[in-house]
Amino acid sequence: MELDFGKLDGLVAAVIQDHRTGRVLMVGFMNEEAFARTVETGFATFFSRTRNKLWMKGETSGHRLVVREIATDCDHDTVLVKVEALGPGVCHEGYASCFFRRLEGGAWVTSEDRVYDPESVYTK
Amino acid sequence: MELDFGKLDGLVAAVIQDHRTGRVLMVGFMNEEAFARTVETGFATFFSRTRNKLWMKGETSGHRLVVREIATDCDHDTVLVKVEALGPGVCHEGYASCFFRRLEGGAWVTSEDRVYDPESVYTK
Repeated sequence: MELDFGKLDGLVAAVIQDHRTGRVLMVGFMNEEAFARTVETGFATFFSRTRNKLWMKGETSGHRLVVREIATDCDHDTVLVKVEALGPGVCHEGYASCFFRRLEGGAWVTSEDRVYDPESVYTK
Repeated sequence: MELDFGKLDGLVAAVIQDHRTGRVLMVGFMNEEAFARTVETGFATFFSRTRNKLWMKGETSGHRLVVREIATDCDHDTVLVKVEALGPGVCHEGYASCFFRRLEGGAWVTSEDRVYDPESVYTK
């Protein structure tokens, strides 16, 4: 039984969840090669739609995502990857999770503090 | 600050997470109207890519998803919706979560039991 890469132009959505806390850390997209690399290497690897290439999360920051479990849904067009996140945060803006904004009274509000300084990681 | 519906042909991915247990229950897609309905009604509503129309989760089964919190990610192209799931399961195949298959030794293996009989719900 294979994943269905046909519904989304060769991609599946990949939900990344902290394997201990259950927090959803980010959502990326994987093509068939990115998924195979994720399984083979044990580090979450995505396909960047904007840069049109594979990227292993953490290749710049060191904040890699160690795969603990992979599940797929009933349609086989999405994967749920439970990970151990290396480093203080997953988001390139310095937050623990990319989902740091909540909808409150019709506006998106930053609902937590940064856990690291992104400039110290991404601009070397 | 608006959501970015431009990267995915007018859609954003919507991760549905149980607000108490943290379990990821399903992933759907929302267009702008589905997102607005979700916010306005308090019930998770999606855009079906295969049927090309809006659908409120639970409109057939009664297994609605009551919105408890909505977050978005750094790129504003994905939403995370924490819900209270009405009914025994979210998956139309009878499972609590659509993510009932895990990768084990290179194969997708059903890793839990059904929580309801889908035929009793969907074929009336």
